[in-house]
Amino acid sequence: MKGSAAVRITAADTDWRDYSGRELPPVLAAALVCFVDQGYHGTTIREVAGRAGLSVPGIYHHYPSKHALLEGIAQQAMADLFRRSVAALEDAGTEVEERFRLLIECLVLFHAHRSEHAFIAASEIRSLRDEARAAHIAARDRQQGLLTDVVNDGVAAGVFTTPFPAESARAVITMCTGVAQWYRAAGELTPEELAARYVVIARAAMGS
Amino acid sequence: MKGSAAVRITAADTDWRDYSGRELPPVLAAALVCFVDQGYHGTTIREVAGRAGLSVPGIYHHYPSKHALLEGIAQQAMADLFRRSVAALEDAGTEVEERFRLLIECLVLFHAHRSEHAFIAASEIRSLRDEARAAHIAARDRQQGLLTDVVNDGVAAGVFTTPFPAESARAVITMCTGVAQWYRAAGELTPEELAARYVVIARAAMGS
Repeated sequence: MKGSAAVRITAADTDWRDYSGRELPPVLAAALVCFVDQGYHGTTIREVAGRAGLSVPGIYHHYPSKHALLEGIAQQAMADLFRRSVAALEDAGTEVEERFRLLIECLVLFHAHRSEHAFIAASEIRSLRDEARAAHIAARDRQQGLLTDVVNDGVAAGVFTTPFPAESARAVITMCTGVAQWYRAAGELTPEELAARYVVIARAAMGS
Repeated sequence: MKGSAAVRITAADTDWRDYSGRELPPVLAAALVCFVDQGYHGTTIREVAGRAGLSVPGIYHHYPSKHALLEGIAQQAMADLFRRSVAALEDAGTEVEERFRLLIECLVLFHAHRSEHAFIAASEIRSLRDEARAAHIAARDRQQGLLTDVVNDGVAAGVFTTPFPAESARAVITMCTGVAQWYRAAGELTPEELAARYVVIARAAMGS
C-alpha cells in the first residue's frame, strides 16, 4: 500500500481516482451550465455573466469571447483527462494488461464523474474554430493514442487476440466516452462500480 | 438467396442494408444541415427557409416551430433505425447469435451512413421539450430493448458469457452509436467493412 501511494505521488502528484476537487474555474463552470442548458450557440455572454455573478466586461476581462469560454472548457477537459490517464499508466507499471485495466478505469471514472463537461466537449467541438479546433483534435488524438498504444502492445505480446486492433481500440474508447451521454449520478451504479464492470467488458472486447 | 430475398420483402418491405434512398423530406434535410453547422439553438427559421428555398411562412405551413423541425428529425431517425432493426431481426430468424450479428451490423450501418442525422438526434435531445422529449426517450428505450433482449436471450442460452448483460448491452450500443461521432465517408473503411469488424468486436465483448 505504501509503495502504491508513493507511485501515485510521483505520478505528477495526480490522484487520478480523486474527483472531490473543483472541476472548473467559476467563469467556465457558469458557461458550462449555460451550454448544457441552451447549447453553445444559444447562450449569450450576458447569461454567462449573470450566472457567474459578474458583469459582461468582467467576463471579457478573463475571456475575450464566448468562443474563448468553449475553448477553455474543452482545454480543461482534455488536459484533466490526459493528466489522469498518464498517472493511471504510471500507477500500472509495465504490465500491459494492468495498463489496459487502469486506463479503462480512468476513462470511465472521468466520463461518469465529469459527464456534463465531457458531453459539451464532445458535442460542441464543431463550434470550435481554427486553431482551437486543431488544438482540440490534437489533444483528442494524443489521448486516444494512449489506449491505441496499450492495445497494440497487448496484441504484439499476444495478450489480446483481436484481429482488428485499431477498430477495437476505437470501439472501446467510444464505449467509455459514451458513458458521459447516459450516466447519471442517481443511477444504480457508482462510477467506481461501473468502471469495474467496463474493465471486464473492454478486456473481453480485446479478446483477452 | 431467393429465400433470403423473400424474407426481406415480408419484413415490412424494408431492405435494412439499403441506404440509396432519400434520408429526409427536403425541409427537414435543410434544417439538419443548419443544426449540424450552427447547433439547434443557433439556427433561425429564416436560415432553414433560405436553405430549403422556401419562405418563412412556407416552412411554418409544414412545421409550426423550430422545435417541430428538431422533433421531426429525431422522429425520423428513430423510426428509420427501428424499422431497419426489426427487419434485420426478421432476416436473422430465431438463432440468437445470428440475431445479435445482424442487429450490430444494422446499428453500425445506420450510424455510419446517417452519421449527421444520428449525431444531431443524439446531441440535441436536450433541446427537445415535454412530450417530444418523452416520445424520443421512449423510442430510444424501445430501440435499446431490441439489443438488450437479444443479449439476455444469449446469456440465458449460454451463448454469451458476460457477467454483466445490462452493461455489456449498453456498452455495445454506445460503441455502435458512437460511430456517428467519428465516421467519415472518406475514411479507410466502408460502412459495410466497418460493420463486419464491429460484429467481431461486439461478439467478443459479450464473451461469445
